[in-house]
Amino acid sequence: MDIDSTAQDKARFFAGAWGRVKALPGKLKAKVTSTAKSIKKLGQDDPRRLTHSLKVGLALTLVSLLYYARPIYDGFGVSGMWAVLTVVVVFEFTVGGTLSKSLNRGFATFLAGALGLGADYFASLFGKNGEPIVLGILVFLLAAAATFSRFFPRIKARYDYGVLIFILTFSLVAVSGYRVNELVVLAHQRLSTIIMGGATCMLISIFVCPVWAGEDLHKAIASNLEKLATYLEGFGGVYFQSSEIDGMGTGKSFPQGYKSILNSKSSEESLANFARWEPGHGRFRLRHPWKHYLKIGALARQCAYQIEAINGCIGSDHIHGSEEFKGKIEGSCTRMSAECGKTLKALAKSMKTMTDPYSSANTHVENSKAAMKDLKFALKAASLENADLAAILPAATVGSILVEIVKCVEKISEAVHELSQLAHFEKETVEPTVSPEKPPQLLHRGIIQPVLDGDSTANDNAVITIHDIISTDSPENGKACDQHQVPKPGQKIEAL
Amino acid sequence: MDIDSTAQDKARFFAGAWGRVKALPGKLKAKVTSTAKSIKKLGQDDPRRLTHSLKVGLALTLVSLLYYARPIYDGFGVSGMWAVLTVVVVFEFTVGGTLSKSLNRGFATFLAGALGLGADYFASLFGKNGEPIVLGILVFLLAAAATFSRFFPRIKARYDYGVLIFILTFSLVAVSGYRVNELVVLAHQRLSTIIMGGATCMLISIFVCPVWAGEDLHKAIASNLEKLATYLEGFGGVYFQSSEIDGMGTGKSFPQGYKSILNSKSSEESLANFARWEPGHGRFRLRHPWKHYLKIGALARQCAYQIEAINGCIGSDHIHGSEEFKGKIEGSCTRMSAECGKTLKALAKSMKTMTDPYSSANTHVENSKAAMKDLKFALKAASLENADLAAILPAATVGSILVEIVKCVEKISEAVHELSQLAHFEKETVEPTVSPEKPPQLLHRGIIQPVLDGDSTANDNAVITIHDIISTDSPENGKACDQHQVPKPGQKIEAL
Repeated sequence: MDIDSTAQDKARFFAGAWGRVKALPGKLKAKVTSTAKSIKKLGQDDPRRLTHSLKVGLALTLVSLLYYARPIYDGFGVSGMWAVLTVVVVFEFTVGGTLSKSLNRGFATFLAGALGLGADYFASLFGKNGEPIVLGILVFLLAAAATFSRFFPRIKARYDYGVLIFILTFSLVAVSGYRVNELVVLAHQRLSTIIMGGATCMLISIFVCPVWAGEDLHKAIASNLEKLATYLEGFGGVYFQSSEIDGMGTGKSFPQGYKSILNSKSSEESLANFARWEPGHGRFRLRHPWKHYLKIGALARQCAYQIEAINGCIGSDHIHGSEEFKGKIEGSCTRMSAECGKTLKALAKSMKTMTDPYSSANTHVENSKAAMKDLKFALKAASLENADLAAILPAATVGSILVEIVKCVEKISEAVHELSQLAHFEKETVEPTVSPEKPPQLLHRGIIQPVLDGDSTANDNAVITIHDIISTDSPENGKACDQHQVPKPGQKIEAL
Repeated sequence: MDIDSTAQDKARFFAGAWGRVKALPGKLKAKVTSTAKSIKKLGQDDPRRLTHSLKVGLALTLVSLLYYARPIYDGFGVSGMWAVLTVVVVFEFTVGGTLSKSLNRGFATFLAGALGLGADYFASLFGKNGEPIVLGILVFLLAAAATFSRFFPRIKARYDYGVLIFILTFSLVAVSGYRVNELVVLAHQRLSTIIMGGATCMLISIFVCPVWAGEDLHKAIASNLEKLATYLEGFGGVYFQSSEIDGMGTGKSFPQGYKSILNSKSSEESLANFARWEPGHGRFRLRHPWKHYLKIGALARQCAYQIEAINGCIGSDHIHGSEEFKGKIEGSCTRMSAECGKTLKALAKSMKTMTDPYSSANTHVENSKAAMKDLKFALKAASLENADLAAILPAATVGSILVEIVKCVEKISEAVHELSQLAHFEKETVEPTVSPEKPPQLLHRGIIQPVLDGDSTANDNAVITIHDIISTDSPENGKACDQHQVPKPGQKIEAL
């Protein structure tokens, strides 16, 4: 009986286990499918990831085979494994990262090796018994000091890996000195294998589908400006629920791409750090002003913070009393936001093509400033007879933040101008006698015509017509000539 | 002549060089002094940096001497250097970082060693000529696949170092198989030395002045809430240029500490990642809800974005016409901002003491919501006879953003409540029957008393007296009972 029940138990157990095993392929299949999908997505998001993986495989295989084929490279011996180690640790996604790590590793090994030999010699002066004590103290002091130096922000940013390798090599050389008599030979071997591994990495990363950190930074900043532009161009249409002014935005789900800019600081800084290690490539020369990109990036983040504040306003005002007021500031606000968007688009385009953004961006900057002035007029003249302030507030806040955004976009424009001068962008149009900040022909572009007779359909209103004085080739200028309405001067005095 | 002039040139050159050399000590002294100062500052900012450096020195000296003292640990031989290498590479500032790297390194080495042996055996089946080709292909495939896997955000966050060591060890074992016959012995030696190095690091980092990533995260989040609180508590006084309400802020340089919160995301995420590797310590148990801290951190950042927008408003309104309007919203705005500050202070305190923030924070949340309602009344009732909208706008924007901040602070309060439940904070006061979101006794705390007679000094105004219904022991409640002014109801109807 006992045996029987045990046998039954066993049979049941195995049946259950078999059931689970049979169910496994289904689960496994689902798991494999989902993993395959995410791998595919990862590769499609940035195909350079796949290339990078293959490049690492290639470098490692080359160096391994070199180490493997002992007959040819007999000189390296066991220390050939340092070449393998170097390739694995040093190969980074970007050229700048790889160069920074390779050079850090090379120089740190050289320096620490020399110092280690010195320490060995110094310790040997203290005799058989004193040597380990002196060496221990030296290793302790140097390791502690070097570790502390890694807390300096500057060293952390550029030489962190070098300091790590310095500690490593110094300890190894200083301590192994007791073991290996041919320390100089060993150090030479190690250094040469590291150079071999590092050189393989550098050559492959530079010449096989290179990923330049500088180019990535350049593109990232330009794309950030574009994200801001997309938001601002669409904002007017979405917030004021009307598509009549720029024909876009309404009904669509609103682009939230700008949110990624909020936390872009660290990635931009590391790219700029790597970019400084890179040689001249493509359109970028050796001493390209990479630091200046960080300034533009910081301003773009500033703008993104303002947009984050304005984004909270969409859909937050349910009070119907504000519709009239919204109507009054709609024209100028939409124009401010759209012109800011166009400025940023022009700046992004000028960065991408590496041409001076002078004429294209400045027109839009001046347009947005003119719209800002119009908003001030509209606000000064707004009648508040039928609306209370609480209902007006959300729309007024939007206007107020848009004013800040205009200021911020102007700063971005100036920063991109500076960059174009520092990096010698091509000139689009050469205007050497006019200072780029104040093109005089662009000021005072709006003319106010008070409508005094009853022939206007928009009663109680004056019409501001914007005359497009400059004839540029951009198609947006036609759209910029819109009409918007401010109350009569007489009515304004009434309201005051 | 020629020789003479050359000699003169040489003399001049050496004189110049000597001058520079003589000037060197002064420059060197200045350089050394400034470096010493920055070292001192670095140490004073966080004394744990000094401790960490000494700990690394200690660990390295211990392991080096172990390797050095060959007679005792003869078993390890040359592979003892792996122990030194492990210590240098694995020792991180926080316990979590050290544990994460040590465990990653240990497991990756074990797994890759086993796989490498398998690969070696598999390749040997293909004969003398096929072996290097098969090994090369295997190394290439595994390195490429493992490198690609590092792009997965999850693997990147937790196992990046492990994958690196996996590639490294697999290549070394697979390739060196040809060289060393006693591969199993070697693998065993390497693993045991790595375990020794890793264990030394782990023990020293846990038991000698430990720096817990979890505790750092906990403190960082609490201190971020405090920074926001400091700003908000002072804001009312600074913006409205009067110190009569809360007696602080005016004339002082305004605290800009909140700015560091804007870019805190990456450091918080890495601390949370490390914290998950740490064992229970102090007040934190093993499965402490570290992920929840990221939620609070994100909300705090949201609040910091709003403050960044409001910070631009300080000093931006030069128009004198707005003074009257500012006076009208001053009371409620200052109270909103101050109560938000007090809420955040209470939440930060409750996090620091790990007590449930129920009663202390909720009082202030309700106070700030009451002040928000008062602001709405004040705005509804505001007379706009003597001011135009453009002048009012900056102050109105401040009010509007403060409303958003109140909402944000309420969310932070809820998130800290959640944390206190998840992490089993001590209960301050147990109120099991009342739901924590709506303490009914706190609603409708303001009573409007229209002043109809001429006996009030504040003519044209009604007085709202806030009666402090709940008697709590916090000293701030006395100050919360302030009076602020809204226009007469009659006047409001006139204006509409």
